[in-house]
Amino acid sequence: MTDNKPPRFAFGSRIRPSPFFEATLRWGASAFTAYNHTCMPAQYGDGTAEYAALTNAATLWDVAAERQVEISGNDALAFAQYLTPRDLSSCIPGKCRYVLITNADGGVINDPVLLRIDDNVIWLSAADSDLLLWCRAIAAAGGFDVSLREPDVSPLQLQGPKAADVAASMFGEWVRELRYFHLRKFDYEGVPLVVSRTGWSGEYGYEIYLCDGERGDWLWERIMAAGEPFGIRPAAPSAIRRIEGGLLSYGADINQQDTPMHLGLERLMNLDGGFDFIGKDALMKQKSIGRKLMGVVMDGDPLAMPLARWRNVLSAEGGARVGKVRSAVYSPRLKQNIGIAMLDKPHDEAGTQLFAEGVIDDSGRCLKVCQMPFVKNTAAG
Amino acid sequence: MTDNKPPRFAFGSRIRPSPFFEATLRWGASAFTAYNHTCMPAQYGDGTAEYAALTNAATLWDVAAERQVEISGNDALAFAQYLTPRDLSSCIPGKCRYVLITNADGGVINDPVLLRIDDNVIWLSAADSDLLLWCRAIAAAGGFDVSLREPDVSPLQLQGPKAADVAASMFGEWVRELRYFHLRKFDYEGVPLVVSRTGWSGEYGYEIYLCDGERGDWLWERIMAAGEPFGIRPAAPSAIRRIEGGLLSYGADINQQDTPMHLGLERLMNLDGGFDFIGKDALMKQKSIGRKLMGVVMDGDPLAMPLARWRNVLSAEGGARVGKVRSAVYSPRLKQNIGIAMLDKPHDEAGTQLFAEGVIDDSGRCLKVCQMPFVKNTAAG
Repeated sequence: MTDNKPPRFAFGSRIRPSPFFEATLRWGASAFTAYNHTCMPAQYGDGTAEYAALTNAATLWDVAAERQVEISGNDALAFAQYLTPRDLSSCIPGKCRYVLITNADGGVINDPVLLRIDDNVIWLSAADSDLLLWCRAIAAAGGFDVSLREPDVSPLQLQGPKAADVAASMFGEWVRELRYFHLRKFDYEGVPLVVSRTGWSGEYGYEIYLCDGERGDWLWERIMAAGEPFGIRPAAPSAIRRIEGGLLSYGADINQQDTPMHLGLERLMNLDGGFDFIGKDALMKQKSIGRKLMGVVMDGDPLAMPLARWRNVLSAEGGARVGKVRSAVYSPRLKQNIGIAMLDKPHDEAGTQLFAEGVIDDSGRCLKVCQMPFVKNTAAG
Repeated sequence: MTDNKPPRFAFGSRIRPSPFFEATLRWGASAFTAYNHTCMPAQYGDGTAEYAALTNAATLWDVAAERQVEISGNDALAFAQYLTPRDLSSCIPGKCRYVLITNADGGVINDPVLLRIDDNVIWLSAADSDLLLWCRAIAAAGGFDVSLREPDVSPLQLQGPKAADVAASMFGEWVRELRYFHLRKFDYEGVPLVVSRTGWSGEYGYEIYLCDGERGDWLWERIMAAGEPFGIRPAAPSAIRRIEGGLLSYGADINQQDTPMHLGLERLMNLDGGFDFIGKDALMKQKSIGRKLMGVVMDGDPLAMPLARWRNVLSAEGGARVGKVRSAVYSPRLKQNIGIAMLDKPHDEAGTQLFAEGVIDDSGRCLKVCQMPFVKNTAAG
């Protein structure tokens, strides 16, 4: 009954276009996903060419779907601190932090980059869950003196080893000096931008936050023109590179049942930091975590596409279900299928041999547990 | 630079498959969307044939993406009442209610069907926003004695004038007697189901909630086989029929900035009901609403596809922006383009002539404001 054509993306007004939407279509976006109720390009025809440009030159990504939650007011920093286990006391204006947002059980409900735009203005660059909804509920209940809104801010990512060359040719040499997880706010040809030295690739790069949704087409074309001498190409967030780098995808690798300990992200928690936050009691009490997120390498033919759904992991002896592969992809540079799996203890030890159902085809594949990242990240420069 | 092929839907493990996913592919699903972080078929090749089957025979929809928020515990009803302006005191076990969930400003953050499954068990059949996240934040802050979770429940919709014949041939004659917005919980061949006389089509129909995600393929095939003599076909939620019926789509027609008054849904509020709920103060104070959601009919060639994004509405005199068309589609039975628009007062009066930018093509189209529904709903039977 099927015609074997790959299913189309159904556009509709429930899923918002980004300010770069027309530009991405013009530049050949061939697949889309929805992220924060917003369209996001997921491929431009040739994923391998995108990966090559990302790791050798420069790529431009429409990630306007990373919607910002703007927290402003006298309690902006205090409110942000109440949302996350990570100590924000050293996060002065101009700095960014990768943070986990936890619920009362310590479960992670989003993992944004936090940008301290100003003394009393903070942005949370949201992953794919309704973070503004969460913040509004918490703020109303807690009596914080803050205003919350989704501002007219739409990020692009400029990622790859030549990203600094592209950015410097547009914005000036100062952008080469912008330190990792620092930001700068400025006008570019009269259009308000924020640029941060952040990204989701493991490569050197920037996020460029357009603060005027009417100028999306203009900004996209400016960057593509500036990048042309450096071999820039449009690309989507790279499943290959981010899994190589051990960067997690909210909703794929993380959900509300996972605490920071399940994710191996204890470094993002300060339980003895002397500040209160949602989930602190639950996280203080969590002794035995039961399961942990780990890397896995899998034998068998290369995966043609990133894994489309979680797959069961079985123990090598006996075949009991001991976890799930949550993400997986073929790495051209490692010449190996690599993935991220949540594994019951004690099957989470590096070196453990396990078995995955249906990852490549209907038959199973052997897998071996390993540490992440698979490839060294060069993002910090 | 583009190859003019319609963009693909990018499958990936961030967007969950439904238990009916394989079945829908087998039956020809040709377009998908993401809804509540879950894949949902949006078309099966021929939208006109789907509409014809819906209005003349029967259709089966995979709406497992309507994820359920289960509220259980001693305070289940009290907690649900705190979430919505609609009086739930007469919603005894076995009944359903269409409700709006409001934030502290009175803005609508979801519009689920509420199912009173049992004395102390309520489901909210969520539209496309993270309702569980909202409920968890509210419950933690308010000290309610409730448990919250997303249970293993996946709805199908069986909609159309022959829906009762299909359902009766499977479940027995009792299902013809199930009253509008009533539900029944039972086992069908050992598999736990809930069936409610609800739906999102304006036609007579049922929602069938599968309570065992392993049996999706089996249930789908059972219903298709039972429906074959009645001309059933697989279909997606019909943009045509729901706009004809004036049924709203959360995220398209409704967002957090809209109160029930903006939506013309005062009937879903009981401000003098003697109960407290989130947003009550704000809604009591709201005097002048400024804008209102209305129907619009538009001239010009038939829309080939449902509107893919909001479009500006201009006043006929002077061309000032006075609102947005939020949804629109061509109705084959009305032989007219119809839509739903949020319009500034006084441009919201039925009969007002306005102008819409880019609805059909780059040139504008005249539109006329009207009441909804466009077509009488037969859902109540």
